Amino acid sequence: MKIVEGGVTKAKGFEAASTAAKIKYEGRTDMALIYSEKPCAAAGTFTTNVVKAAPVKWDRQVVDSGKPVHAVVVNSGIANACTGEEGMYYCEETARAAAEALGIPADSVALGSTGEIGRQLPIDRMKAGVKALAEKKNDSIENGTLAAKAIMTTDTVEKELAAEIEVGGVTVTIGGMAKGSGMIHPNMCTMLSFITTDAVISKEALQKVLSADVQDTYNMISVDGDTSTNDTVLLLANGAAGNEEIKEGTPEYEAFCQALHEINVYLAKKIAGDGEGATALFEAKVIGAETKEQAKTLAKSIVCSDLTKTAIAGHDANWGRIFCAMGYSGAQFDPEKVDLFFESKAGKIQITENGTAVAYSEEKATEILSQPEVTAIADIKMGTEEASAWGCDLTYDYIKINADYRS
Amino acid sequence: MKIVEGGVTKAKGFEAASTAAKIKYEGRTDMALIYSEKPCAAAGTFTTNVVKAAPVKWDRQVVDSGKPVHAVVVNSGIANACTGEEGMYYCEETARAAAEALGIPADSVALGSTGEIGRQLPIDRMKAGVKALAEKKNDSIENGTLAAKAIMTTDTVEKELAAEIEVGGVTVTIGGMAKGSGMIHPNMCTMLSFITTDAVISKEALQKVLSADVQDTYNMISVDGDTSTNDTVLLLANGAAGNEEIKEGTPEYEAFCQALHEINVYLAKKIAGDGEGATALFEAKVIGAETKEQAKTLAKSIVCSDLTKTAIAGHDANWGRIFCAMGYSGAQFDPEKVDLFFESKAGKIQITENGTAVAYSEEKATEILSQPEVTAIADIKMGTEEASAWGCDLTYDYIKINADYRS
Repeated sequence: MKIVEGGVTKAKGFEAASTAAKIKYEGRTDMALIYSEKPCAAAGTFTTNVVKAAPVKWDRQVVDSGKPVHAVVVNSGIANACTGEEGMYYCEETARAAAEALGIPADSVALGSTGEIGRQLPIDRMKAGVKALAEKKNDSIENGTLAAKAIMTTDTVEKELAAEIEVGGVTVTIGGMAKGSGMIHPNMCTMLSFITTDAVISKEALQKVLSADVQDTYNMISVDGDTSTNDTVLLLANGAAGNEEIKEGTPEYEAFCQALHEINVYLAKKIAGDGEGATALFEAKVIGAETKEQAKTLAKSIVCSDLTKTAIAGHDANWGRIFCAMGYSGAQFDPEKVDLFFESKAGKIQITENGTAVAYSEEKATEILSQPEVTAIADIKMGTEEASAWGCDLTYDYIKINADYRS
Repeated sequence: MKIVEGGVTKAKGFEAASTAAKIKYEGRTDMALIYSEKPCAAAGTFTTNVVKAAPVKWDRQVVDSGKPVHAVVVNSGIANACTGEEGMYYCEETARAAAEALGIPADSVALGSTGEIGRQLPIDRMKAGVKALAEKKNDSIENGTLAAKAIMTTDTVEKELAAEIEVGGVTVTIGGMAKGSGMIHPNMCTMLSFITTDAVISKEALQKVLSADVQDTYNMISVDGDTSTNDTVLLLANGAAGNEEIKEGTPEYEAFCQALHEINVYLAKKIAGDGEGATALFEAKVIGAETKEQAKTLAKSIVCSDLTKTAIAGHDANWGRIFCAMGYSGAQFDPEKVDLFFESKAGKIQITENGTAVAYSEEKATEILSQPEVTAIADIKMGTEEASAWGCDLTYDYIKINADYRS
């Protein structure tokens, strides 16, 4: 597997575009298109929130129908959530406008929206935006990057990555783009991730790989514990690479899983590190666990705690809060066995041994915790399983961004 | 039932004291004593966190033994959590010092600690503090209030209340004190609540009343979603009122339950409204629920969301975040049926009808949301059950207080 430059247009046969449609924002792009002339097998995972945005309901239908997908139309600024029948109608209208502009069936158009909940989409601007996207689309790397920019809300940087694998002498490419950056526990801002591949692979295999990998990547990040109404991950495969079909149980399948995982982990960590107001990516790694599930539960509880997050913001080795967060996670362990370490580019330091503090240097700890990427490692000494979760620090700017998000 | 002035010393036979023992803080009191010469039946509820502080383990033993309790010794500044065997030994030493100073058995002394996790108690100062408390104790209302002040950490005000009921012509009094104000989801700062009553009532009845009422009061508040290692509610009954024993199923039992509930709700709301950095008490009330449990799950999810809390801080009627928080709570409901209202002293306003926005005045909504006590009411139209949860807004000051709590 090789990491390469690019995003959703890196795989063969995929085009992208972005445009400033004035959905809500002024002076920036706010709509994006991903398009494949060749029909795509599509896999998707969606928010578990009972309150599902209209585009989530729409995409669920599109993916479940089993029909091929040709396009994804995404807008930022308005989430089209809590918008009732009117909101669903605007999904239909948007898909119909895309179908007309691109010469494809309306039920081959997936949708994504992110932004304010409860407000209706300005459908005329959406339709005009779709038309502009259809005219501007091309397969350049640059257009992929511009699409990644157009779907941002409070994100500070676009997020994209691509990887190549070899399948029977043929190069297969996977590329993706994603956005965060509040209501991330995989709302208002929503996690959206769109992955494209030119692999020849069945829809069933695609869904299986995606559903499994999401559990260890996007579902292991948290900015604020709020699960959005709009969370969506879509994976499209158009088969343009012309490889022999990738089948389960083969080395090629493993390679595909690994490459997809690398892209998903990269995008997930980028979302966590670019959380609203964040100054640091905070990783919690639990090792020595009895089961993977236990390690995941403990790791996620650590990165979700407002108190661990404010401590990271303050570069403070407040290990008691980490123990506390593990303690209320719901997972069982013996706190009097736990060895805790902090690690970053500035070094690694042991903080506790068997649950109580060792004589560590607060100064060195603060130095380690002042880096832009910080890891807390908890060895619970019960077995050999491990897991990581990713979050960010909680800062004044999170409050600033969210106390008056709508104005 | 009559609400009356006072706290833990209002009920007959209870004395209190406070002292500045320099456990961690300088220039303020940091130890408190509650004492009853008459032996008390004791009921207790404790943190569900797997990481339990040494005083929680100690109190569990004291309450479970069924032996009478005579005293509670509380310190602020250091939580005596994650302190291993040394921490447990310091509990013993503290209880022994109290036993000696007060002339009571060591196993009749309950303990409470709140503050930094992972640091050992300065046991010599604790012992000296206990001695000073024993000398200063008396049954004045003022000493009750001073005790309530001494147990504060980042709390900005002391929290106490008392109530009287009539039992067969005899006045029975219940009084309590509590503290918050971070790691409140009933950590670092811990929720502690101590209730005293002169009622004649069995230990079994006492525990039953307390365990039930905690579910609707302290367990329905949240400052930051972090469940402390030290959360403790203790209810002591010394029988000094001389009433006929209060037995289950009688009107007197109901009156006792009601009075205890009023005190617990008052203290719980005080803790929520005085959450770290908070400028407003935020109540979420879910009505029209199918079951009480459903109403509680939804209400608590609303007050726990960082995004609803920052919206309250910004006086922003961001109702989408409330829907979102209900949606990921785990409780089932139909978002397209929900009527949402905001209410405060400035009035009441309907925001949604059947899940979508009505034409409401943002200006009026902001006025309502700018009050120090704000309620969101969600009618889910499924039945007749209801529940409230209490939290607070999330502000810059929460970050300020917690980014560098230890320094």
